[in-house]
Amino acid sequence: MATAISNDRLLRVLRGEPVDCTPIWVMRQAGRYLPEYRATRNQAGDFLTLCKTPELACEVTLQPLRRYALDAAILFSDILTIPDAMGLGLSLEEGLGPRFARPLRSRADIDALPVPDPGDELRYVTDAVSLIKRELKGQVPLIGFAGSPWTLATYMVEGQSSREFTRIKGLIYNDPAVAHTLLDKVARATSAYLRAQIEAGVDLVMLFDTWGGALSHRAYHEFSLAYMRAILAELPAGVPTVVFTKGGGPWLESIAASGCSAVGLDWTVDIGEVRKRLGDGITLQGNLDPAVMLTKPSVVAEEARRIVDAMGAGGRHIFNLGHGITPEVPPEHVSVLVDTVHEHSRRYHCA
Amino acid sequence: MATAISNDRLLRVLRGEPVDCTPIWVMRQAGRYLPEYRATRNQAGDFLTLCKTPELACEVTLQPLRRYALDAAILFSDILTIPDAMGLGLSLEEGLGPRFARPLRSRADIDALPVPDPGDELRYVTDAVSLIKRELKGQVPLIGFAGSPWTLATYMVEGQSSREFTRIKGLIYNDPAVAHTLLDKVARATSAYLRAQIEAGVDLVMLFDTWGGALSHRAYHEFSLAYMRAILAELPAGVPTVVFTKGGGPWLESIAASGCSAVGLDWTVDIGEVRKRLGDGITLQGNLDPAVMLTKPSVVAEEARRIVDAMGAGGRHIFNLGHGITPEVPPEHVSVLVDTVHEHSRRYHCA
Repeated sequence: MATAISNDRLLRVLRGEPVDCTPIWVMRQAGRYLPEYRATRNQAGDFLTLCKTPELACEVTLQPLRRYALDAAILFSDILTIPDAMGLGLSLEEGLGPRFARPLRSRADIDALPVPDPGDELRYVTDAVSLIKRELKGQVPLIGFAGSPWTLATYMVEGQSSREFTRIKGLIYNDPAVAHTLLDKVARATSAYLRAQIEAGVDLVMLFDTWGGALSHRAYHEFSLAYMRAILAELPAGVPTVVFTKGGGPWLESIAASGCSAVGLDWTVDIGEVRKRLGDGITLQGNLDPAVMLTKPSVVAEEARRIVDAMGAGGRHIFNLGHGITPEVPPEHVSVLVDTVHEHSRRYHCA
Repeated sequence: MATAISNDRLLRVLRGEPVDCTPIWVMRQAGRYLPEYRATRNQAGDFLTLCKTPELACEVTLQPLRRYALDAAILFSDILTIPDAMGLGLSLEEGLGPRFARPLRSRADIDALPVPDPGDELRYVTDAVSLIKRELKGQVPLIGFAGSPWTLATYMVEGQSSREFTRIKGLIYNDPAVAHTLLDKVARATSAYLRAQIEAGVDLVMLFDTWGGALSHRAYHEFSLAYMRAILAELPAGVPTVVFTKGGGPWLESIAASGCSAVGLDWTVDIGEVRKRLGDGITLQGNLDPAVMLTKPSVVAEEARRIVDAMGAGGRHIFNLGHGITPEVPPEHVSVLVDTVHEHSRRYHCA
């Protein structure tokens, strides 16, 4: 039995219904820029324990909502929970970035890879979702998420963050069939994972394709977008979905046609031009340069207004940054952002 | 008195004249993947000495032409010669990336910045150009180049390579007037530098905007493209120009309208679609994913043919990678690339 959601601006926008102002949430809103987050994380000991302890994951999910008039909560977790559940041995040390103890180095490694049962190895995630939903008390919608299969595969094959993606690109070019085997497994694991998050109560889901933008036009469609499309096709009808490829500016039409409800934008595109390109049949999410959050309150407000103005009247827009908020952002800048977006966008809405 | 150029395919394409096949050169073709380059570099001691010694710079410029049927030579140098000549104290250590001993940290630093005289502090570059032109004996055209003012400014303000560009973005958002003062100085230095290269004999020039793609749509136009346009306006008529912004896919129309003769493409865009967007009034350069060069000969050939096919018949195309060739590329893969492009593109040309 679902609780009614009192602030449903974000869900209304996704359904194309009128709203009083533009909803906003912030990628990585539960994060290191918040002192209360750092305190809970210290209590957990490390990032992965924080993800895997539902009570603590719930606590940090709710923290930004206590400070800011945000229009959504997002499950506190990490895109690498799936490869971790597949047995690759994830470690997430600050400053070093993610590392896998057992990266995929051969076709045999890929063939041996298990598809985890989200009710078992990933139970801590669905437990966190249930707990967060209970604690949210219908205040705002809860966003579930996963990484795109391509993005997960980059970490699984490289073993860590990469700039050039030499190993994974070697795989897709030299052994495309093996790459497809891997991506298909990850996609199946991901759709099961997102279905479990939905059953546990998330109101919408987002796919983060952080590294799709490293691919060529053709390779993006074959090795990244195709698997996001496959995942979307496996999700229950009626649950809104957001697809975000960082650096995906050249491919927004293809993303919009993937079956998603909303297209995430980084900050390189002009949202007004994107609205013209894609039309009003789809919702846009984004697109503030995260570097703006490090400037000063007047600039944060000015740049936020500029995006709201570029989007214009009656558009379907969920305001967000074009990538995650960074640890050095002064927390008061987020207040300025959220309040400016709400206030300045009222002139463009009529509900 | 200019020597006639025997292989002028590249210049013909830039003028919109028919060619027998698609010309090709490779960004960083004089580079660490070549054993003879590494030998000369070891002889020089370090990278900067190699740049600053005209005989050695000439030698490495010519090395790839002895191995491959390339359609152009490119001056061996570095985009950071200008800030070095401005007194910032450049060091280029392998693996560490470029560093400046005296990065710009205040408005006073920027106001005090001298605009170097290319006939004096940068004389080693024009000397290298004269020497290369003499040694080339009109075999192929020689490309001169510079970094874009925005790209140079990122290094000058950050002091080194950056992922987030926090300082320089802080400057453009918090103190745009100071940022413009800096960019204007760098643009004036750059146009004088390119004019000097042209006087010394280069046949065309290219602007490398490696970090323009880190900017928002609006900031790109204001802080990167505007200064490249200003430089192009200061160059003598009749000298072809190439502008390349890595990650510039969303802005190709604006780049094409900047006054350049050719638009550089990274590998995220489909060159066939770009040709449709921009029309046949401008030349395109690119757009192979550099990661392909690390795969195997059959894949190098296949991916090269795919781009030639995507470009189609009668188009104005200079084949290249979408970014610099990397040190681990087997030298024989470059032969495969060059020969495949020449051979496969003949069917699309009629000269």
